[in-house]
Amino acid sequence: MTAPAWALAFLREARVGRLATADAAGRPLVVPVCFAFDEDVLYSAVDDKPKRTRELRRLRNVVENPMGSLVVDEWSEDWSRLRWVMVDGSADVLRTGADFGRAIDLLREKYPQYRTMDLRTDGAVLRLRAERIRAWRASD
Amino acid sequence: MTAPAWALAFLREARVGRLATADAAGRPLVVPVCFAFDEDVLYSAVDDKPKRTRELRRLRNVVENPMGSLVVDEWSEDWSRLRWVMVDGSADVLRTGADFGRAIDLLREKYPQYRTMDLRTDGAVLRLRAERIRAWRASD
Repeated sequence: MTAPAWALAFLREARVGRLATADAAGRPLVVPVCFAFDEDVLYSAVDDKPKRTRELRRLRNVVENPMGSLVVDEWSEDWSRLRWVMVDGSADVLRTGADFGRAIDLLREKYPQYRTMDLRTDGAVLRLRAERIRAWRASD
Repeated sequence: MTAPAWALAFLREARVGRLATADAAGRPLVVPVCFAFDEDVLYSAVDDKPKRTRELRRLRNVVENPMGSLVVDEWSEDWSRLRWVMVDGSADVLRTGADFGRAIDLLREKYPQYRTMDLRTDGAVLRLRAERIRAWRASD
């Protein structure tokens, strides 16, 4: 995946991203997510933060329509400091297995908040495999 | 539109939202946007901040597939302070007319940064008419 070094660092370090999925009819949904970026893959967990019924919509979307888009961006009232990185790719849901376990480990490493939460029992990880990364900053 | 007062205030005051659209094939795209919320309608302008070619994709999406989703959220390392508001609705593109002018006026009122930019010549406004507003906060 070709992307500027600053963009890859931003994907690794950003604390929150916004993930878009869409259902079979193409109706989009965007949700804030905690995520871990590992090589060309982004993992986010379904946890107990928001209401359970709400959470499931993104998972249902990905089963119906395996495409996803995630953005991380930095807001500033000084628009010469704006920047964003967008990742488009294919998405799926993991519930067991080595990649599921690795995702949970990476998320707990990045977010201490996850360390006391049970993410494995009835847990789900949304995996987004990057096919395209686009980056922009106003100061370039 | 029924939504808690705090959620409507958040939509009015949030400085940045993230907007998801999808193309005719259902491929989602999410972008950060400045926006103005007026009654049940959200307006965002296409301006010169990001690259032009990138900007056009969201407009093309909306022409192909008139559905959109926008989220505003507040991030905190203290997850008891998290909150978000999601707006789903129908989207279209305005390039002239009274609603286009009103959108530009509202955006300039909210964002001083827009006051010195020409948003009218070859300008475009993406309008999202809210059909559903969902709000969540951890502290409820």
